[in-house]
Amino acid sequence: MARIIESVPNISEGRRSEVVAEAVAALRQTPGLRVLDVQSDADHNRSVLTLTGDEKALEAGLLALFEVAVARIDLRQQRGEHPRVGAVDVVPFIPIEGASMPDCVALARKVGAAVADRFGVPIFLYEEAASAPHRHNLEDVRRGQFEGLGTKMQDAAWAPDFGPRGPHESAGATVMGARMPLIAYNINLGTSDLEVAKRIAKAIRHSSGGYRHVKAMGVMLEARNIAQVSINMTDYKKTPLHRVFETVRSEALRYGVNVVGSEIVGLVPEAALQDAAEHFLRLEGFSKDQVLERKVRGD
Amino acid sequence: MARIIESVPNISEGRRSEVVAEAVAALRQTPGLRVLDVQSDADHNRSVLTLTGDEKALEAGLLALFEVAVARIDLRQQRGEHPRVGAVDVVPFIPIEGASMPDCVALARKVGAAVADRFGVPIFLYEEAASAPHRHNLEDVRRGQFEGLGTKMQDAAWAPDFGPRGPHESAGATVMGARMPLIAYNINLGTSDLEVAKRIAKAIRHSSGGYRHVKAMGVMLEARNIAQVSINMTDYKKTPLHRVFETVRSEALRYGVNVVGSEIVGLVPEAALQDAAEHFLRLEGFSKDQVLERKVRGD
Repeated sequence: MARIIESVPNISEGRRSEVVAEAVAALRQTPGLRVLDVQSDADHNRSVLTLTGDEKALEAGLLALFEVAVARIDLRQQRGEHPRVGAVDVVPFIPIEGASMPDCVALARKVGAAVADRFGVPIFLYEEAASAPHRHNLEDVRRGQFEGLGTKMQDAAWAPDFGPRGPHESAGATVMGARMPLIAYNINLGTSDLEVAKRIAKAIRHSSGGYRHVKAMGVMLEARNIAQVSINMTDYKKTPLHRVFETVRSEALRYGVNVVGSEIVGLVPEAALQDAAEHFLRLEGFSKDQVLERKVRGD
Repeated sequence: MARIIESVPNISEGRRSEVVAEAVAALRQTPGLRVLDVQSDADHNRSVLTLTGDEKALEAGLLALFEVAVARIDLRQQRGEHPRVGAVDVVPFIPIEGASMPDCVALARKVGAAVADRFGVPIFLYEEAASAPHRHNLEDVRRGQFEGLGTKMQDAAWAPDFGPRGPHESAGATVMGARMPLIAYNINLGTSDLEVAKRIAKAIRHSSGGYRHVKAMGVMLEARNIAQVSINMTDYKKTPLHRVFETVRSEALRYGVNVVGSEIVGLVPEAALQDAAEHFLRLEGFSKDQVLERKVRGD
């Protein structure tokens, strides 16, 4: 079985295209590493790079990326709308095929230690790799941004997991960790009443009492004049698509509103759709090994 | 994108394991061909070989298989429970990835012509590759078996698509064609009344007025004391799983019976499950390109 881990490093440069090109070139020169996507945003002054490979390829590629970013990005000058603590701001590792979450946690620790050692950039481990519960959420780790990092790191609760006890003078710190793939999932309602979507969002999201791995808000789709529950699914294995869909459907009916459709924005893991099919078809004893293409590919 | 076609040749030998081993060895020596599965049945005196590869690998492998089968299997002596017309009895080609049904029809014609030319074995094209409607179903082409073939082929309606106007003296003829992957799909009912399962099977199967690509019958699951609608889905793209499931559910309710579960026996194409998820989640504008693993694999 091919062993594939995804990594989505975010770098704090989205304006100087020559710097982004240099970073991408360094990644592309790494044997075994694939660069699937590069998205730069000038307002955010940030680029999101999507990479896949095995542990060896990812470690080599990310060290090459740090080489460029540490040399070329200076957070003392960098400004943008997106919060950031580092030149390489955040590096998640995501299990895709033949690799587990513990494999990704181990990789975050290995690459984090290597980066701290070679570049003197302090590393904070987050999400599944976090060394304490208060360091789990990215937003909490990043609060105060680069400018507040020197003060924040004097607090023992914010000592880095690897590297020096203070920020790198120009490259700040990097938040590195492991997480499940995200699914951006929206459910469209047969109503123009935004309030209904907002109430349903509140019912399903973790922060207000809903499902553990759901973030949600109500929004208007102006072009279609309908309200939408806009959802981020942060762990589709523990909180599956079909359960959220059924809950939204049932909550909407309480207002006499139907679900008119749903949409997946961007990518979705194959297993998330298979789990939904399994649920609705009431499949008994189904194994993913029964998927023809898996057998044909020899996964 | 990898170009993958599946072929499932059935040979009329399931007792002499050395002959089967020789056939499999010939296949395994073909570059680019994978032998996924070999199932021999002594009562049927038949072996089912599951192969994948691109056109070139399949053509080379099948010619090597005919070489062994024509030399080693003599239908004048061969006896078994399973009906057969040839040493290599039937060879379907099935599109899996990056190949279409017309590609598989073209391959059946190409390999069929090559086999007729090299071995003097007449070829009948069937299913999607059939040259006339009455030659579409395997059962119709095979009716009369090897023993009746000489007489049958004197009828102009049963002239072969390739090769001589009479059977090969020991190897008979081969039925070659293209079809969709089959899905063996069973739906379990919350009743011990077999009659309900039989009525539902009748309602959904093509032969008695139901869906075009459904074969079905009612059976008892003795161990669980429940009735089951046992289904063969012959084209999941045109008659999808979810539609059959919903129809069975609705027909069962007419007798006050619930669907307690369903099961897929053997393999199922990834797209069949994705189509079901799409249906039940009411997905709008979903594309298979959004499946993360496809993107990662670079399909």
